[in-house]
Amino acid sequence: MSKGLPKRSEDYSLWYNELVKRADLAENSAVRGCMVIKPYGYSIWEKMQAQLDKMFKETGHQNAYFPLFIPKSYLSKEASHVEGFAKECAVVTHYRLKNAEDGSGVIVDPEAKLEEELIVRPTSETVIWSTYKNWIQSYRDLPLLVNQWANVVRWEMRTRLFLRTSEFLWQEGHTAHATAKEAMEETIQMMNIYAQFAEEYMAVPVVKGRKTENERFAGADDTYCIEAMMQDGKALQAGTSHFLGQNFAKAFDVKFATKEGGLEYVWGTSWGVSTRLMGALIMAHSDDNGLVLPPKLAPVQVVIVPIYRGEAELEAISVKAKEIMQSLRQVGVSVKYDDRDTQKPGWKFAEYELKGVPVRIALGPRDLENGTIEIARRDNLTKETFELASLPIAEKITGLLDEIQTGIYQKAFDFRASVTTEVDTWDEFLQVLEEKGGFVSAHWDGTSETEEKIKELTKATIRCIPLDRKEEVGNCILTGRPSEGRVYFAKAY
Amino acid sequence: MSKGLPKRSEDYSLWYNELVKRADLAENSAVRGCMVIKPYGYSIWEKMQAQLDKMFKETGHQNAYFPLFIPKSYLSKEASHVEGFAKECAVVTHYRLKNAEDGSGVIVDPEAKLEEELIVRPTSETVIWSTYKNWIQSYRDLPLLVNQWANVVRWEMRTRLFLRTSEFLWQEGHTAHATAKEAMEETIQMMNIYAQFAEEYMAVPVVKGRKTENERFAGADDTYCIEAMMQDGKALQAGTSHFLGQNFAKAFDVKFATKEGGLEYVWGTSWGVSTRLMGALIMAHSDDNGLVLPPKLAPVQVVIVPIYRGEAELEAISVKAKEIMQSLRQVGVSVKYDDRDTQKPGWKFAEYELKGVPVRIALGPRDLENGTIEIARRDNLTKETFELASLPIAEKITGLLDEIQTGIYQKAFDFRASVTTEVDTWDEFLQVLEEKGGFVSAHWDGTSETEEKIKELTKATIRCIPLDRKEEVGNCILTGRPSEGRVYFAKAY
Repeated sequence: MSKGLPKRSEDYSLWYNELVKRADLAENSAVRGCMVIKPYGYSIWEKMQAQLDKMFKETGHQNAYFPLFIPKSYLSKEASHVEGFAKECAVVTHYRLKNAEDGSGVIVDPEAKLEEELIVRPTSETVIWSTYKNWIQSYRDLPLLVNQWANVVRWEMRTRLFLRTSEFLWQEGHTAHATAKEAMEETIQMMNIYAQFAEEYMAVPVVKGRKTENERFAGADDTYCIEAMMQDGKALQAGTSHFLGQNFAKAFDVKFATKEGGLEYVWGTSWGVSTRLMGALIMAHSDDNGLVLPPKLAPVQVVIVPIYRGEAELEAISVKAKEIMQSLRQVGVSVKYDDRDTQKPGWKFAEYELKGVPVRIALGPRDLENGTIEIARRDNLTKETFELASLPIAEKITGLLDEIQTGIYQKAFDFRASVTTEVDTWDEFLQVLEEKGGFVSAHWDGTSETEEKIKELTKATIRCIPLDRKEEVGNCILTGRPSEGRVYFAKAY
Repeated sequence: MSKGLPKRSEDYSLWYNELVKRADLAENSAVRGCMVIKPYGYSIWEKMQAQLDKMFKETGHQNAYFPLFIPKSYLSKEASHVEGFAKECAVVTHYRLKNAEDGSGVIVDPEAKLEEELIVRPTSETVIWSTYKNWIQSYRDLPLLVNQWANVVRWEMRTRLFLRTSEFLWQEGHTAHATAKEAMEETIQMMNIYAQFAEEYMAVPVVKGRKTENERFAGADDTYCIEAMMQDGKALQAGTSHFLGQNFAKAFDVKFATKEGGLEYVWGTSWGVSTRLMGALIMAHSDDNGLVLPPKLAPVQVVIVPIYRGEAELEAISVKAKEIMQSLRQVGVSVKYDDRDTQKPGWKFAEYELKGVPVRIALGPRDLENGTIEIARRDNLTKETFELASLPIAEKITGLLDEIQTGIYQKAFDFRASVTTEVDTWDEFLQVLEEKGGFVSAHWDGTSETEEKIKELTKATIRCIPLDRKEEVGNCILTGRPSEGRVYFAKAY
């Protein structure tokens, strides 16, 4: 029930946490920083996975599975990689427990200490490239296009459900290529697939861009990303695709015999999206009544609620409801009939609003008489009385679901446009960040030093160098030094 | 290429290991006891997952996800559970690394020691029942039917690809019920689903049965299982379903308000199958040429190999091949056309034999003239020349795939029958175990003491008390004491 869900305008952060819990998406576990993904939340994640997996396979990728554990020494093999990940990892040091002598429970058996500690993977480049060394000998073995669906662990001090958890679920693609050009094309292709998924399925518009050197993946030569805008004016990095150059090939000595008879290091990419996408989905569309789900990812697209008194009325309504369900299922619409007698219709309405079911159909005795149904849209909370004779129900509902999918994308698109601001002075920059938030498009002198200084002063970071930016000469908002074009700043999740 | 694959009759164990590696199913990783599941192997696992997941959902289960880590103290809450799992678990004691002062790499940061150690889940009963405590208040919350697809870790000293690895992939179902009867029905239902999956999809016949007290899951009141027979006469436990009674509900204080206004402990079940099924699949059907896959789980069901000289021949063959592919894809048959010019047909034939593709079609210039194709079956290695005009190709191939699916099941069934022996004396028992292996059906006096003694003397264990056993009074083969019925003994994986 949505009763008492905090308002976004009053406490956005509390609203988000409460919504995630009350809509049965996820909850905190007893293990610090780790979440439990509840069945309803997981069913949305499954829909995301299925679509992404399809898109990966259509572009020639295959799934595989690599070990959870990484020998500690592997992490150090790529110099910048270890800097990025050593600080936040779970370390396995022992492999056995034993009964405490005082009978108080179990203790770690000091005899069972590992010779080399194992790291729970924070990401799998090292273990995968150590494997690729054996898989790649010749140009015939390339390209190698592999993806893995897995859990990873990065020890986090401050966690938030879906957005930042110590353990999270993700997919990580790891590809190997004969040329830099091909690896770069793969990097861009996967960024585009992520953007297409975010926009067409999640209904979340994204900015495609490159990261600055500061924000690059530890071990990459270049990182591309998609950045989304949340309703509170904060940005959220929704996916990254890395051009690894030959860094990991050199660290793990992965060479291939070229067609021409030479021996060269392999070029690599890696790319990932995670359960963080759930956070983006929730925060981009939902309102004070609860979740708003795009029809393409909603586990239940239509719910039918009977309004009745007594068994006879319910029976008559159920006949009609089942007819409607059948018509809808035939065209691939997922529909649920909630005829539970333990809850009143009003309770059910609030429940499905909270859970973001895109379309609700109510069906009462008067509807049966009149040949009508009541159709309510979750996205804009409008209702209409629909005459069943006017149009086949399947056509009506599929049309409506399309309209909702497009509508919530457009709403998010318009919102983002309304909080994207070009500024040219430091004062404007501060004012926009303070009063309005959103993406601030501004000139920057291209140095890490200035970038860090701006972050220190405002908490805003450079989200990306947009791929579609105009060439425009200008002056850095902080230093006044010359700039080649605008970048997107924002406070971010 | 299958060249040099060891023969089963010479070294079954070596044959298995080599087959797993050469057919690109899996390999050992640099991390002790952990495997890499290669793309081809993983694609078979994906097919298994998809089918099992469908069967779970059809019986009302939903997926969710619970944390990888379990606080050490949770393990001790259920007395027999801790005995079973404490000995073989990976223990996380620290959450950070740092650079070694001597520049030699990274070391565990002693400052970052966890207050309470975390166990990498060997199974999730404890963390899940600690969560269920919050999910279950009333009879309205029951039954709770949840499944999880996850990785688990049990530290193993001797590992074998798929059969016994320190990390493995599995699904674990965890359900909660209002009554013992309902929980027991669920336990049996899931065993039946596993049996149906093994027989109808894997084409592996299984014995359904109960485990003896000795072999029960640590924390269960009763364990049901399916037991398969491998070609070397050793049994393999392929899936288990546990009736947990109220043990975990009591350990984690999970009570519910009954319809009648009382307060009672919840009844539980858990059940799982793992990547071990891959081992069963491989060992049940494969031969000295390589893998034999049941069509229902083969990632590629049909491969078409062109036999040609020169571009013109290849072009003409390709036109025909594409026609055939289209017809097959329309009826849902997965088909691959291998027109690589880097390998000869003979090499390709051996390769697809090694990989277990059920049907191979060869197509040469003479076939085009005659309106024929050559069809080869992987299971019995027979070939036939098929006249395309005699029957639509889709009908021919779907019929053939069904025949192969049934055929390999029947072959495995007949083999199992041939190595299932009733014995009534200790000498016979020893002789059968020694000379023939397989399931030995014999009387046992029902005591753990005798069971252990037999294991000590022969390495054979009681695989199960078959559910369909006849009532039959007899005498224990070892002690001569009275017995109520026969049980199945075998040496096992």
